[in-house]
Amino acid sequence: MTENYYAFIMAGGGGTRLWPVSRQSRPKQMVRLGGNRTLFQLAVDRIAALFPPERTFVVTVADQAEELKKQCPGIPAENFLIEPMPRGTASVVGLAAAALYRRDPQAVMTVLAADHLIANVSYFHELLTHAYLLARDGYLVTLGIRPTFPATGYGYIQRGEPLADYGFTAFHVSRFKEKPDEATARKFIERGDHDWNSGMFVWRVDRIWEEFQKLMPELAEKLERIGSAWGDSQPYEVIQAEWPSIKTETIDYGIMERAERVAVLPAADLGWNDVGSWESIFEVFEADEQGNVALDANHLGLDTTHSLIVADDTDRLIVTLGVSDLIVVDTPDALLVCSRHSAQRVREVVNLLKQKKETQYL
Amino acid sequence: MTENYYAFIMAGGGGTRLWPVSRQSRPKQMVRLGGNRTLFQLAVDRIAALFPPERTFVVTVADQAEELKKQCPGIPAENFLIEPMPRGTASVVGLAAAALYRRDPQAVMTVLAADHLIANVSYFHELLTHAYLLARDGYLVTLGIRPTFPATGYGYIQRGEPLADYGFTAFHVSRFKEKPDEATARKFIERGDHDWNSGMFVWRVDRIWEEFQKLMPELAEKLERIGSAWGDSQPYEVIQAEWPSIKTETIDYGIMERAERVAVLPAADLGWNDVGSWESIFEVFEADEQGNVALDANHLGLDTTHSLIVADDTDRLIVTLGVSDLIVVDTPDALLVCSRHSAQRVREVVNLLKQKKETQYL
Repeated sequence: MTENYYAFIMAGGGGTRLWPVSRQSRPKQMVRLGGNRTLFQLAVDRIAALFPPERTFVVTVADQAEELKKQCPGIPAENFLIEPMPRGTASVVGLAAAALYRRDPQAVMTVLAADHLIANVSYFHELLTHAYLLARDGYLVTLGIRPTFPATGYGYIQRGEPLADYGFTAFHVSRFKEKPDEATARKFIERGDHDWNSGMFVWRVDRIWEEFQKLMPELAEKLERIGSAWGDSQPYEVIQAEWPSIKTETIDYGIMERAERVAVLPAADLGWNDVGSWESIFEVFEADEQGNVALDANHLGLDTTHSLIVADDTDRLIVTLGVSDLIVVDTPDALLVCSRHSAQRVREVVNLLKQKKETQYL
Repeated sequence: MTENYYAFIMAGGGGTRLWPVSRQSRPKQMVRLGGNRTLFQLAVDRIAALFPPERTFVVTVADQAEELKKQCPGIPAENFLIEPMPRGTASVVGLAAAALYRRDPQAVMTVLAADHLIANVSYFHELLTHAYLLARDGYLVTLGIRPTFPATGYGYIQRGEPLADYGFTAFHVSRFKEKPDEATARKFIERGDHDWNSGMFVWRVDRIWEEFQKLMPELAEKLERIGSAWGDSQPYEVIQAEWPSIKTETIDYGIMERAERVAVLPAADLGWNDVGSWESIFEVFEADEQGNVALDANHLGLDTTHSLIVADDTDRLIVTLGVSDLIVVDTPDALLVCSRHSAQRVREVVNLLKQKKETQYL
């Protein structure tokens, strides 16, 4: 891989759907699932063969920066970009592009998530390499995940004309479609020409910067001011001054949906999982003969099927008897017992705890 | 109530069906359920109006005696009879009768369980008073519980001819029937002339002693030897010498089924509950609008119905989401999650833990 390829890992998210393991003080990317490494560490490990630490950047919030630095001490401290407050992905991606443009105007950057899992790592490396080749030619590349069910929780990308001459499969993007209703999602899958928008992107920094100037000129101007103050250290004061007035916007809506030369690289068997709920764990970990998955749990199951048992920092014996399709998540101060069909509703629990001001559990 | 009426509370049992709250070191009678008092303390409290501490006796095993004495310090230490090892209810009831006969040959005694709950206490007092009157006349009285479902876990008593002249309802016993199969139990309920055998008895000590001598002469002889050694303190050495060779037998089979002048006092609305499983808790405690019962639990239920949440010495937040007919029992070192229809199978868990030699959880 060439030396002007940089990775930006977005690690500022919250994530309430893995409660009670994920908390405000320990968002999803800091969660360990059935191993010793956090999702963030796994995200860094996964790309280490392509991106040495000095070309790996982390975009995060002040609250999380110190802990993330500790988790990946190999990444230089100055590669952690601090977002003063959440203003959507457009602003953080723009900040990353502005910072990198100062450092290397010819750079190609990939934007990745800190809280996703990817099973097929060598295929992922291949995709990032192909994406680099497209980006070098001026394309804004998005990785499209082949849908496995009519998800309503993801945006979709419609493939247009194929991109010839590359020796691998890629397409012009016909259009981006934000989270659809289920009927529409079903139609997309039947048509077979829509992929999930993974939120993973690759582009040349000058190209994305050009699009920021054209499509989000106000934001570009602010980022310009931050960028021109950039030296050996991050211009915290300028960022602090500019950030509060930034309008919250996603990179998808702000840039990708309206930009020129947007390409999609379809990823069919990436084993991509955004760990969006406890239910999604069943796709990531192999179940035993009864269809159960136990993560770090001292579990004894009698007449227990298709259930998930998670212990986080507890070593209690967990006995399940005569249950199926159940999720049990045991933590030192909170226990969740939830049916699988209700896994998406865990965020309602968090919202209710917020309402009740039970802050110790948030 | 007269002054020759004595209560013997049987408090030597184990009880695996309330695991993980009940353990070897904390059998069912030492369990607290939704309050500060143990089942044993509640059993003592319940009869305090009829039986002052000096006429309340406790039959237990060596392991439990100290703890039980601590729980009810009002009962004189010499009123705790220690059974060296379990030999069935016939021997402990016989020991109690032998001990009491030495003290007061005209005494009437009631045999009660330490691990049952009774909701209607004033009615219970009334029944014990009626039973006393029958016992004084030489009847061996058993309290019969009106069946509410075709239970296969209890013995049954068939009512015979009514006992006239008492101003309250009582019957000669036609026969005792040990735990029936479900079809038979159903038939008993249809016939309407069978009650559950509660294991609660009332008799004059000379009368029961007479039956022991007639029906279990070998046991009576051994108990005689223990009784004749009885002085101010319990004759531990004699008990230790005689006890190992005693044949294990129940009072029901050994005496009641074959004795003369046996009467049953039917108890229709006693609110009697032997707390035989977590399921039985639903009969004891009032459920909320969703049909849930939470005992000592910091519980937050969303879309949760007909479920039982028990916390024993833990204060963790327990969240249930999208579940029904579920039992969750949280203790410091073990968690049980169990469907209500599997509640009777909790003892299988205990057996499995025994097999696996996981003694710390027993």
